[in-house]
Amino acid sequence: MTTATGNRQIVLRTRAGGIPQADDFELRTGPLPAPGPGQMLVRNRFVAAEPAMRGWINDESNYWPPVAIGETMRSFAVGEIVESRADGFAQGDRVTGLFGWQDYAVVEPAAIDRRLAPDEPGPAALGILGLNGLTAYFGMLDICRPAPGETVLVSSAAGAVGSAAAQIAALQGARVVGIAGGAAKCARCVEEFGCAAAIDYKTEDVGEALGRLCPDGVDVYFDNVSGAISNTALRHLRPFARIAVCGTAAITDWADWPQGPRVERHLLVKRATMRGFLATDYAPRFAEALAALRGWVADGRLRYREQILDGLERAPGSIAMLYRGENDGKLVIRL
Amino acid sequence: MTTATGNRQIVLRTRAGGIPQADDFELRTGPLPAPGPGQMLVRNRFVAAEPAMRGWINDESNYWPPVAIGETMRSFAVGEIVESRADGFAQGDRVTGLFGWQDYAVVEPAAIDRRLAPDEPGPAALGILGLNGLTAYFGMLDICRPAPGETVLVSSAAGAVGSAAAQIAALQGARVVGIAGGAAKCARCVEEFGCAAAIDYKTEDVGEALGRLCPDGVDVYFDNVSGAISNTALRHLRPFARIAVCGTAAITDWADWPQGPRVERHLLVKRATMRGFLATDYAPRFAEALAALRGWVADGRLRYREQILDGLERAPGSIAMLYRGENDGKLVIRL
Repeated sequence: MTTATGNRQIVLRTRAGGIPQADDFELRTGPLPAPGPGQMLVRNRFVAAEPAMRGWINDESNYWPPVAIGETMRSFAVGEIVESRADGFAQGDRVTGLFGWQDYAVVEPAAIDRRLAPDEPGPAALGILGLNGLTAYFGMLDICRPAPGETVLVSSAAGAVGSAAAQIAALQGARVVGIAGGAAKCARCVEEFGCAAAIDYKTEDVGEALGRLCPDGVDVYFDNVSGAISNTALRHLRPFARIAVCGTAAITDWADWPQGPRVERHLLVKRATMRGFLATDYAPRFAEALAALRGWVADGRLRYREQILDGLERAPGSIAMLYRGENDGKLVIRL
Repeated sequence: MTTATGNRQIVLRTRAGGIPQADDFELRTGPLPAPGPGQMLVRNRFVAAEPAMRGWINDESNYWPPVAIGETMRSFAVGEIVESRADGFAQGDRVTGLFGWQDYAVVEPAAIDRRLAPDEPGPAALGILGLNGLTAYFGMLDICRPAPGETVLVSSAAGAVGSAAAQIAALQGARVVGIAGGAAKCARCVEEFGCAAAIDYKTEDVGEALGRLCPDGVDVYFDNVSGAISNTALRHLRPFARIAVCGTAAITDWADWPQGPRVERHLLVKRATMRGFLATDYAPRFAEALAALRGWVADGRLRYREQILDGLERAPGSIAMLYRGENDGKLVIRL
């Protein structure tokens, strides 16, 4: 089934705080694991890099137990079953789940999120048809619920989640304004990702631009960043606005809880809602969402970008790349 | 109809910022107004004092245009129609609406919130069967939606809104913990207002008490205060918690936007919702709410306190009384 005798793993070496850097991890080669009864051995082909992985490492404020020092870094992955001792799974099946930054994983059926369609590219299953697409789908359609003609603001709008969220809002008939860093990303928001306009937070005064582009305020703010951009967005809410708290990319460290302008009065006078969410809570509705996402991708109404890094040794530096905004679309590591 | 020839009015004299004090207002006596066609003359019998009136004066962050300098202070009132030139309203009808801090108001039918029931006490129509009861009803049942067995935290739980919110939550089968200032108010929370326990924020460490009384966290936080108590409550949320932003009594001034710990990460990891609301947005459902509130009051399941101040000249100092926590229940001024 396999001729490999070792399993390369990227393990967490230290919890330095802030954005995880390449040398917070180390490569370790362990023995090739063997599946027990009811288990299967998966050969990872693609592993993901997500902004959320910063949170998975943190010692506090987690929705999952933090990755332990010396433990293989948790990540979504797409792999191929090379040996199955589990009913219903066969050698050669391509599957996705939280298999980690490693060559091989031994997993049980409960750890399999889903099987890939025969023609489905592995990277898409980690991005637009994976966590990113699902996050955009449920965040926009369940939390934000834009009505036709409403104004939707998306931060990090050229990113893997933001670009999908912007397009899904546009598909609802909303007018979408994106915020992104740099002229190239802003151009992409407008040309590819359904935005009527984009604001370059690196060169523009976001408050001034919002006043100009959204003179009546925003009905929806899909927030991927927190920080200064969100402080400004809060001042441009329309009555009954919805804010989906999807990510906090602009905040380097939550250990010393960062301060910001209090939100209560904004939310009260605007009767606005601010709601955190995780796509993983919507598992019972993944089939519905994937069917919609696949349909939109197939007919060209949902576009996405991917950037592939080759080799597991690229994984340790990938999270910091995301936070520096150097990626062009969904960042995936090919093994 | 009336032998009065003048109309005493409490007008806004200055916008000093912070909590409005007695000398921010002045008494002015104007001519007795005369109703035109389609209007009626209302003799106010009771006028309200609300924490929200601080916001109505503010120049910014308002949901209504601020009360202008020299204008009669906006307030809910209960009055008696002394002359009607409006169809459907007769002399002697008791009505409630935003008639202001004055002896007489000339109003049109659209300004009448409702007619009082024959046996309905005037003060109740301003409190438990008025803005306070409606706010508690919609805030708890529409925003917070506590399920039986859930833990509900209410700040300012001995206040006119908080005490009703706590009891409505308890009626849903929730376990309610109140926060109030001082032993007497805390005792009232437990003995009269349906709380399983109460925390005295003036003498107790609220975080320690929450950890002890709500070891698994809170599912609902009905927030009347903002500020330090809310910062602490935020650290005790359970997954899928709902926060109703009802009032911000602990914040003296929003002109210089106060800072606090950022909420995004709390909301995200707990998938929590923070939502501002105003009871006045629920006008189409007032009849439903009033029927429920009346029923609970009638059968003793919804208790309330009122404190009556005699004389319009007591009105100017009444808002500051509320913010000093000196009132015992709903504060109403009898004319």
